[in-house]
Amino acid sequence: MECGEPVEQVALRPGMSVDELVRLLGRAGAYNGGALSRGADIYEKMVRDRETVKFFGLAGAMVPAGMCGIVSDLMERGHIDVLVSTGANLTHDIIEAIGCSHYHGSAACSDVELRHDEINRIYDVFLPNSAFIKFEEFMQDVFSSLDTDRTFSIMELLGEIGRHLDSGILACAAKNDLPVFCPALADSMIGLQYWLFAQTARVTVDAFLDMKALIDICFAAEKAGALIVGGGVPKNFILQSMLVTPKGFDYAVQLTGDRPDLGGLSGATLDEARSWGKVCEEAQTVTVYGDATITLPLLVASVLERLDS
Amino acid sequence: MECGEPVEQVALRPGMSVDELVRLLGRAGAYNGGALSRGADIYEKMVRDRETVKFFGLAGAMVPAGMCGIVSDLMERGHIDVLVSTGANLTHDIIEAIGCSHYHGSAACSDVELRHDEINRIYDVFLPNSAFIKFEEFMQDVFSSLDTDRTFSIMELLGEIGRHLDSGILACAAKNDLPVFCPALADSMIGLQYWLFAQTARVTVDAFLDMKALIDICFAAEKAGALIVGGGVPKNFILQSMLVTPKGFDYAVQLTGDRPDLGGLSGATLDEARSWGKVCEEAQTVTVYGDATITLPLLVASVLERLDS
Amino acid sequence: MECGEPVEQVALRPGMSVDELVRLLGRAGAYNGGALSRGADIYEKMVRDRETVKFFGLAGAMVPAGMCGIVSDLMERGHIDVLVSTGANLTHDIIEAIGCSHYHGSAACSDVELRHDEINRIYDVFLPNSAFIKFEEFMQDVFSSLDTDRTFSIMELLGEIGRHLDSGILACAAKNDLPVFCPALADSMIGLQYWLFAQTARVTVDAFLDMKALIDICFAAEKAGALIVGGGVPKNFILQSMLVTPKGFDYAVQLTGDRPDLGGLSGATLDEARSWGKVCEEAQTVTVYGDATITLPLLVASVLERLDS
Amino acid sequence: MECGEPVEQVALRPGMSVDELVRLLGRAGAYNGGALSRGADIYEKMVRDRETVKFFGLAGAMVPAGMCGIVSDLMERGHIDVLVSTGANLTHDIIEAIGCSHYHGSAACSDVELRHDEINRIYDVFLPNSAFIKFEEFMQDVFSSLDTDRTFSIMELLGEIGRHLDSGILACAAKNDLPVFCPALADSMIGLQYWLFAQTARVTVDAFLDMKALIDICFAAEKAGALIVGGGVPKNFILQSMLVTPKGFDYAVQLTGDRPDLGGLSGATLDEARSWGKVCEEAQTVTVYGDATITLPLLVASVLERLDS
Repeated sequence: MECGEPVEQVALRPGMSVDELVRLLGRAGAYNGGALSRGADIYEKMVRDRETVKFFGLAGAMVPAGMCGIVSDLMERGHIDVLVSTGANLTHDIIEAIGCSHYHGSAACSDVELRHDEINRIYDVFLPNSAFIKFEEFMQDVFSSLDTDRTFSIMELLGEIGRHLDSGILACAAKNDLPVFCPALADSMIGLQYWLFAQTARVTVDAFLDMKALIDICFAAEKAGALIVGGGVPKNFILQSMLVTPKGFDYAVQLTGDRPDLGGLSGATLDEARSWGKVCEEAQTVTVYGDATITLPLLVASVLERLDS
Repeated sequence: MECGEPVEQVALRPGMSVDELVRLLGRAGAYNGGALSRGADIYEKMVRDRETVKFFGLAGAMVPAGMCGIVSDLMERGHIDVLVSTGANLTHDIIEAIGCSHYHGSAACSDVELRHDEINRIYDVFLPNSAFIKFEEFMQDVFSSLDTDRTFSIMELLGEIGRHLDSGILACAAKNDLPVFCPALADSMIGLQYWLFAQTARVTVDAFLDMKALIDICFAAEKAGALIVGGGVPKNFILQSMLVTPKGFDYAVQLTGDRPDLGGLSGATLDEARSWGKVCEEAQTVTVYGDATITLPLLVASVLERLDS
Repeated sequence: MECGEPVEQVALRPGMSVDELVRLLGRAGAYNGGALSRGADIYEKMVRDRETVKFFGLAGAMVPAGMCGIVSDLMERGHIDVLVSTGANLTHDIIEAIGCSHYHGSAACSDVELRHDEINRIYDVFLPNSAFIKFEEFMQDVFSSLDTDRTFSIMELLGEIGRHLDSGILACAAKNDLPVFCPALADSMIGLQYWLFAQTARVTVDAFLDMKALIDICFAAEKAGALIVGGGVPKNFILQSMLVTPKGFDYAVQLTGDRPDLGGLSGATLDEARSWGKVCEEAQTVTVYGDATITLPLLVASVLERLDS
Repeated sequence: MECGEPVEQVALRPGMSVDELVRLLGRAGAYNGGALSRGADIYEKMVRDRETVKFFGLAGAMVPAGMCGIVSDLMERGHIDVLVSTGANLTHDIIEAIGCSHYHGSAACSDVELRHDEINRIYDVFLPNSAFIKFEEFMQDVFSSLDTDRTFSIMELLGEIGRHLDSGILACAAKNDLPVFCPALADSMIGLQYWLFAQTARVTVDAFLDMKALIDICFAAEKAGALIVGGGVPKNFILQSMLVTPKGFDYAVQLTGDRPDLGGLSGATLDEARSWGKVCEEAQTVTVYGDATITLPLLVASVLERLDS
């Protein structure tokens, strides 16, 4: 066993840029600070690599926490080719896009009082019920505009929704013709709105149709890379799709708050993914443990600064 | 503010039963030990309450860790009316049911070597690739037997699979005519097998059809209770379905390794669910933080002992 | 790489004993359930091994949570030769021993109201200020009885306190003539009481004197084993003492809620301790991640049952 | 209940400064990103408040991870009046100050091989044994220079060490005449060196003498604030010292990876500290959950930028 570079004690400079800080964390090199810096190095290589198809996995309640802006910005800049999201993030993206807001709240409060005041809580974020009334109107309008008697994939359905919006993730994806996958869409407020609509509708949404589209992308990819926020369905759906191809992911960076010892996929290391072949043997990967409301902005701001200079 | 009962120092008795231990944890009453004991009290009430429809949410890699036996046992005893699972757990359930095994392994190993030896790793559990060959044969057989030119719900598809099996969760559900929901089925090896099958098939699986079935159950329920292992899609899909009814869950026990401060649903408290109306204002709820491979057997063994006496 | 034993699906038996359950977790063998079972196997061997000096490390707020009963029981049965504790656990042990109680409380409450009601909170445990008034009387009595003009070690001071008590950890240690170490005693209510006493006293307590006593025990030990609850000072003080001997620990079981990736010792694996030589190369060790109010009673009850049969 | 400000979606600007980023996290306002931003606001007020005595608590293996530079920088700038540390951090500070280095390593390695190669591991940081040989020489030199036949406090002992060094935390504290407290000094390599020295020495170090010095500071303080990294002894020793005064802390920011539900002090909220009176009723406090190798540089760089402009 050999020692690597010496740990450099961090010397902060007032007014330093985010990338300067992230590079200092890299020269210190330890624990999750070091991992974050290695994550920025890998993500920089990945977005600079023109042969690489770029996947982005979005789990956790990221949109209510203001992270939607980062995702749509990465799309606009061409750094996301394929987005896989939970239904909840897309629900909250629509809520913001139709002009409603999430609000600063508190985790130390009476949820019964909140219930009486018609406010829904997501940890320390508050969301008034009124947003869901507007959301229902919007969703029913979109669904009513769908061609009847045909079968949609979930990706197509999300594309339709995006085309009715002017801002946010779904709008940005639609505008740039980027596929958004969400295998568990039924498990969201969008799903509940669809259930309402489906009581009288003649539209079919196929549960598996998107797999072909996604796997075709995987087959066509020279190389593949993924930035994965949280775990859940998006992480697995991205990684498993490569399983049926002869390839694996060449780059993968995961930002998660879960730990591996519980056995769940959300906290599983990307090394584990190597045993399955989801990730190449020689892939560059790193997992950063922590809250993505800190690690995602830090990592992306650092890499955008590098790309910009 | 008032103090409750005094904390009793735990006095272990060699040979004591599991429920004796759990009751001692309740008299000590603190932290997650106390929460586990309150969870057992709530779960006991819930399963004894004949008016209550009993939901079970299964997330995390529980079947590879031997927890499948507990779920099918609870089904056999009539303590589960509705199961919502991740696709991964159902995949591993099928693998066990067709005669393959998961194996004791190690988390400290070379995943590249494992890859060469055709062994897939789930933290410290090993699963040889050979299991997936047998799995493919089985799944293609099942899918080939499906009626063509019709539309299935995911629940119906899982029912078909269960009827081809003799043991495990899906078999037990099929035998007892219990619905199994899995909104993100595409996100699993079952999904990948379906993609393979679908290249030549004429069967449609509807992504949203199950919502009607589940919501009908919710509307019909006098009262409702849930035991939720992990978070993810199963937790939300169970809780959200009550949103469109005038009711909320009356009992809810969650066993999770996630924490609330990251904002994600998996670690969200059941109090938060009260603000949304997913859980009744006066519902009895508790969250136990920890590894469900410890907390689930402990909680269930304790309650089975109470029911048996 | 080779697969080990097959994972056995857990089959619970209503009324089963705790050790039956722990053995089932071992046959399932995965994640922290598997680790707990291996921990019980190691701890059983350790306590049965007559050549082994048995250390116990006690960190975290374990006494307010009712875990004091387990520690004193292990002492009475001869399974602890050396205890290393935080000052807080010894403070709360004294509080219980002088007839005061900790109480069931709640973590969701107003701490300002608690302050007004003179109740101190430890997560969901409440402790009225009145206990500290009685504690002060007791401690000043004990300190006043000390020989003046001499130098005590912390272990001697704790021995004096224990001889004034009838129940609990310190009393039990004193009765059985077992050393209790607490290097950070100043960092506790006992320390604050000593500060009060020291304003007029002529007694010296040496900060380092105990090291000789502890290291002498390490040198004299044929073999050494440790059960470590939490991390902190007790974990390190136990492990570091072996560093100056030619030996390392032969058995070590750690129950902790911390994770390794943050770099801190409390979450560090016992493998890491091998690189330092604190733990033997061939030592039997395991770390169980989780809340010790669940894992400690489970592990000890399981091992006591084995020893009893 | 009322909603606060709307959550603003984060809009990153390539090349933005660290404080710009932290302020964006504040306008997003959610989870630990929001908490970090509030922490910067509180810490800014605290360091700008000339009436406030500023405490810094240093736990976790922060120096091997390069965080020593931040602490000594804060000291030089006058933002730390009192430092409370673990013994391990001071050991590693001395190691760096005498010209040895910690090195980038890996957590996925054989600790037995590391042992053979005489390398000690701290998660993914490597430290060769040779550093401890030089450390021993240095420490024995310092101890040999101590006045015999007198009693030192731990703070005085650390002051002596600092005066023999040119860089790092202890040197900087000595140069600026700042007190460094370390109640558990025996629990460290410094302690082991003292044990070696003490086999022939006639110097006494009093375990409790520092309490008077620290409590005198607390009594004299107009107002008090604390930045607490990790938990452990430093957190409690800082907070408990205020207990014997009529005051409590006015500002407190904690950066920790532990969670409250395990009951331990390291993860305890600062609200809990309000019930004890360690923190004022109206104090401004926040806890940021995460790895301090990320949160500490981010928070301090943000505040230094504000102070500089």
